[in-house]
Amino acid sequence: MNKKEYIIRQIAKTNKKNYENYVVTRIFHLINRLDIKFVTQQYVNRPEGHALTDMYFPQLKLHVEIDEPFHSKQKSLDLKRETDIIQATDHQITRIKITDNLESINNQIDNLVMDINTQIKNLEINKKWESWDLDKEFNPFYYQEKGYLEVEESPAFRKIVDACNCLGQNYKAVQTGWFKSKVYPNHNLWFPKFYKNKQWDNSISKDGITITEKCLDPTSYNSWYEDVMSNLVRRITFPRSIDNLGFKLYRFAGVFETDVNASSLENGVIHRLVETRIDIK
Amino acid sequence: MNKKEYIIRQIAKTNKKNYENYVVTRIFHLINRLDIKFVTQQYVNRPEGHALTDMYFPQLKLHVEIDEPFHSKQKSLDLKRETDIIQATDHQITRIKITDNLESINNQIDNLVMDINTQIKNLEINKKWESWDLDKEFNPFYYQEKGYLEVEESPAFRKIVDACNCLGQNYKAVQTGWFKSKVYPNHNLWFPKFYKNKQWDNSISKDGITITEKCLDPTSYNSWYEDVMSNLVRRITFPRSIDNLGFKLYRFAGVFETDVNASSLENGVIHRLVETRIDIK
Repeated sequence: MNKKEYIIRQIAKTNKKNYENYVVTRIFHLINRLDIKFVTQQYVNRPEGHALTDMYFPQLKLHVEIDEPFHSKQKSLDLKRETDIIQATDHQITRIKITDNLESINNQIDNLVMDINTQIKNLEINKKWESWDLDKEFNPFYYQEKGYLEVEESPAFRKIVDACNCLGQNYKAVQTGWFKSKVYPNHNLWFPKFYKNKQWDNSISKDGITITEKCLDPTSYNSWYEDVMSNLVRRITFPRSIDNLGFKLYRFAGVFETDVNASSLENGVIHRLVETRIDIK
Repeated sequence: MNKKEYIIRQIAKTNKKNYENYVVTRIFHLINRLDIKFVTQQYVNRPEGHALTDMYFPQLKLHVEIDEPFHSKQKSLDLKRETDIIQATDHQITRIKITDNLESINNQIDNLVMDINTQIKNLEINKKWESWDLDKEFNPFYYQEKGYLEVEESPAFRKIVDACNCLGQNYKAVQTGWFKSKVYPNHNLWFPKFYKNKQWDNSISKDGITITEKCLDPTSYNSWYEDVMSNLVRRITFPRSIDNLGFKLYRFAGVFETDVNASSLENGVIHRLVETRIDIK
């Protein structure tokens, strides 16, 4: 997918909602540059809970929320079990009030666009601006060069094998979602599904710091539990999700450690976030 | 309906077609002024036949056509019998090729927007620029002040009574679509439907210069025909149509005169366009 297809598809996500389409296209066309990435309808975790923002600029950690009557209500219906949700605790959120007249809506957007241009300029001055580059996204070599993965930057891969090789596994293809690390002692790479499926009922808390893991096969439950508790490893975790255009995604969620005291046969195995960053060796 | 609602609805017409939505919103947001009117998906009569243009600027008589593969084919399906069709013989048509890459599409639109700005500036310099004013549109007093109706300018009214009063009938309400003029000797005001209905099968040629009128009631056909041919009047004609947002419209089509030689009991009554302009007395 090239930028043209990407941008057209992102805008198309707003087609059913007329004001959203107006605001999103106006912001995009007035910023008028192809080196800034945007995502429409991005699910985020905020301290106050899940939310869906209408337009998200990852490079600025900036979200635009369009204040439509009954807006959030309608939208919350779209949340599917595989939905990609990013941690947005430290992100900015700007609101556009669309109940005002058109001149006021346009003024609000003009101000936002000025603000965005200033933020980009400041990043450029401080040499922290990174142009949106489709070849870098989801690219293991890009992250290897960068030298680390950090939850706050929402790094992600399209394939399990890419995440594995980014962290030094050197695979040609993979069949499972669980690997002993060749590089990090006593660490495993883990690609869980955080929704109930045939074999597992795993979930992550909304704040992204607690994972509950449960085997769903009653005949192997006890042996699985004993095995996990007697072979404690840190888990470099990449949950599987589906992004807003319908593509598979493995987004780095951090390094987790099993909480032996909180775990039990009844509650399942509990893992806690211990590192939000991992250096690539 | 205010400008905000109007603009949102016009853009919403493009929602199903992603490239059309991209191009139309980009043109609108980059022109960035609320005194220029636009219509999306306007049916036009051209010497080469019916066409649907993607974005139409009535003040500039300028149409934008988005060259999508299979575009016109899909769109021709939307034509309904009541569709408002304007005469666009002398209008400009600009094409935006969307098979190119995004930079090229944006360049084409930038050039078009520059061209539009120049055209507006030239009209302003020559004092021929008329700001888009919702209160003037469809307003009989506006046209009375202007002093004439001219087919090329596509004047229209929302109600039969407005068109009647614009031309001096001074009615409070009307029940029919056919009135003897109080102002123009030997002229009638006519508000025909140019599609088959219960009583009539009237139609206008694509070039807008020939009307065929046929009564559909066989028991009164002969007496109707004799009556028309023995009481020849000029017809100030406002066909009924439905605009692209679904609102009723009576658009001035010119003054027509019965062509006695071409008419026959078999073919119906034939009327020919004799004046495209009428001065308002």
